[in-house]
Order: sequence, then structure tokens, then C-alpha cells
Amino acid sequence: MLNDSYSSKLLQNAVAELAKLPGVGNRTALRLALHLLSKSSEDVNIFGSTIIKMRDEIKYCNSCNNISDTELCEICANPVRNAKLICVVESIKDVIAVEKTDQFKGIYHVLGGIISPMDGVGPDDLKIRNLEQKLEQGKVDELVLALSTTMEGDTTNYYLFKRFSKFNKPITVLARGVSIGDELEYADELTLGRSIINRVPFSL
Amino acid sequence: MLNDSYSSKLLQNAVAELAKLPGVGNRTALRLALHLLSKSSEDVNIFGSTIIKMRDEIKYCNSCNNISDTELCEICANPVRNAKLICVVESIKDVIAVEKTDQFKGIYHVLGGIISPMDGVGPDDLKIRNLEQKLEQGKVDELVLALSTTMEGDTTNYYLFKRFSKFNKPITVLARGVSIGDELEYADELTLGRSIINRVPFSL
Repeated sequence: MLNDSYSSKLLQNAVAELAKLPGVGNRTALRLALHLLSKSSEDVNIFGSTIIKMRDEIKYCNSCNNISDTELCEICANPVRNAKLICVVESIKDVIAVEKTDQFKGIYHVLGGIISPMDGVGPDDLKIRNLEQKLEQGKVDELVLALSTTMEGDTTNYYLFKRFSKFNKPITVLARGVSIGDELEYADELTLGRSIINRVPFSL
Repeated sequence: MLNDSYSSKLLQNAVAELAKLPGVGNRTALRLALHLLSKSSEDVNIFGSTIIKMRDEIKYCNSCNNISDTELCEICANPVRNAKLICVVESIKDVIAVEKTDQFKGIYHVLGGIISPMDGVGPDDLKIRNLEQKLEQGKVDELVLALSTTMEGDTTNYYLFKRFSKFNKPITVLARGVSIGDELEYADELTLGRSIINRVPFSL
């Protein structure tokens, strides 16, 4: 009658830790733990210490709040990138998503969250001040607001627009429209409507 | 143009380690890494070191090969369990599965695998010898073969039956039949056929 005790406290503890990961239940955690048990001691040491090292040593870029191994992240430090074109995103995940498109040559500003009254997140919880300083110092030609198209994203867009409009710099948002590869009949009407209003000249 | 470099080598290494876990792709690994980054340094240290400790310190029971924190696992060491009734399973996962039923009062023998010519696993790769010794020493009243109902499981059942039949002890296999909660029309014909042949007296 072991129930959840797995006959080993060591295994039980490891399963409990793995089950704290998002999307990992007890059954998956057990599978992961047994997988790790089947690996060499050296491999598992590298696994664990790499994760600990990441958490202990990672830095955040002084300029844009992106994660970085150095004081200034690779993107901000890259002289080829246009430092006056700033893409404002919610999190590091969004930096990676935009970078993958290979279409943006400016730099980023990571807010570290999004205004969400329901979750008790207000403007003061976000990293806005060092972006504002760049605007004050005339270091910005254009702000691209690349936030989620949710109510929270719209609220944050609105807040940033109100706060920054006095600097008289172009503030843009991502184009909304029909996804590439989507069939028109399945596009939602809000998106389809927006893509009609914002139609662009056909080009080859 | 970061592509997969994530602007941080530390993050990249952690993602690469997490992506080695079964069922975890690069996207999920990134999500897990960012989740761990959002936790306190102490929590992540506990996470990593618990896993390393498990791998480094776990033992295998001298008697049944089940994982254990001690020389003899909790089940084998439990005087209430019938040590002469031995359930032969492929892996630790199966011990946990049978224990969860709360229906088995004997002990286990973990083979550490299953005979699979396709994967190059033969009888010599399994832990059979210490089970055979128990049979030779008259320490077994019944062997319950609880292996998967696959070709490999059937092959292993057949092999064990041939090797151990000389000891003249009852060798049983798990009942195969319609799963509890299954609708009859969806049961596969092999299982349904077997459950008709092995029908049991109705009892309240």
C-alpha cells in the first residue's frame, strides 16, 4: 500500500518538484523522473546544474529589460540595429517571437507584464520609466506597440499612448488582419473587418 | 537576428537541457525555462538539487530490483506482505500501477525490461537470475506474470514460463478482459473473445 509514496522518498521528492512545472501533472512528473533516473549521473548533474546556473547568473539588460548574460543585451549592443526604433513587448517570449520573424531591425523594450486590473497589475508594476527616459532624451524615433490583442493589451496600448503622446513621436501598433494561410470564411468578423478597413495596395 | 540563440547563452543551455526530456519540444522547453526564471533562486536551487540528489543517491532493492532508498525496498522489508507470492513486472512504473490497485499483497520482481528482439533486448539483459535463485531455494509459492499484453510481453511470458516450469510452482498471468467502464461495442474482438472464454461466475 504505497499509494503515492513510490517506495522511495528521493523519487517522491523529485516527482513533486517536477510536478510544479506548468502543464506537468503527477503522472507526467513520474515519467520525467524515471526518464532522468535512466540517464547517467553525469547527465542528470548537467541537467540540474544548468538550470540552477541559469537562474542564478542571468541578468536583465539595463536598457531594455530583456534577459541577457551581460549588462547590455546582445540586441541593444548590436550597432547594426536601429536603437531609435523601439518595439514594446510584454515579455521575453515576445522578443523571441518577433526576432524569429527576422523582420524587425530596431531594439526592444520589455515591460515585464501587461496592465491587468483583474490581476491587480497596474502601470507601476511595469518597467515603463526607463523607456520614458529614452523618449525624454530624444533617443526614440518610433515606438511600435507589439502587445497581445486582448483587453489587457489594448488597455496597456491606450495607457502608453496617453502617457507618451506628448513626445510627438510616431506610435504604431502591429497590423491586425487575416492570418497567412487562413481561410476567409473562418476568420472572425472583428479581424476580417479590421483587415478591410486597413487594406493595403496589392504588390507583387 | 537571434533565431534560436534567445539573447542569452544561459537560457539557451537551460532550454536545450529541458528539451531533452521526453515529450518536451523546444517551445515547451522555453516555456518551462521562463517559468523557472520567474521563480526565486532558492526554489530553482531546490528543484535542480532534488533531481540531482535523486539520481545520485537512489538505490535498487537487492531482492526485487525496485527503486529504494535502502538496500531492501519498503515492500520487500514489509513483514505483512507475502514474500512467496511474486509479481513479475517490466519496470518500476508497473510496481506503482499495481500498488495503486491495493489488491496485491505479495512482493514484486522488476525485470528492468522486456524481451524485444527488435530492440536487441534478450533474456541476458533482464534481471532474471535473482528470481531464479528464489525459485531454486523454494522461496516462491506463485509467480504472477504482470507484463504488457504486447508481442514483447507475450514473448517474455513464454520465455519465463519455459525457464521456470521445472520448479513446478503455479505461474499465472493477469486476467485479460473488457475494461471496467468500457462499452461492449467498442471493445476489440481479441479482448472480448478472451473475456468470453475466461468468463467467471457472477457474484454480488
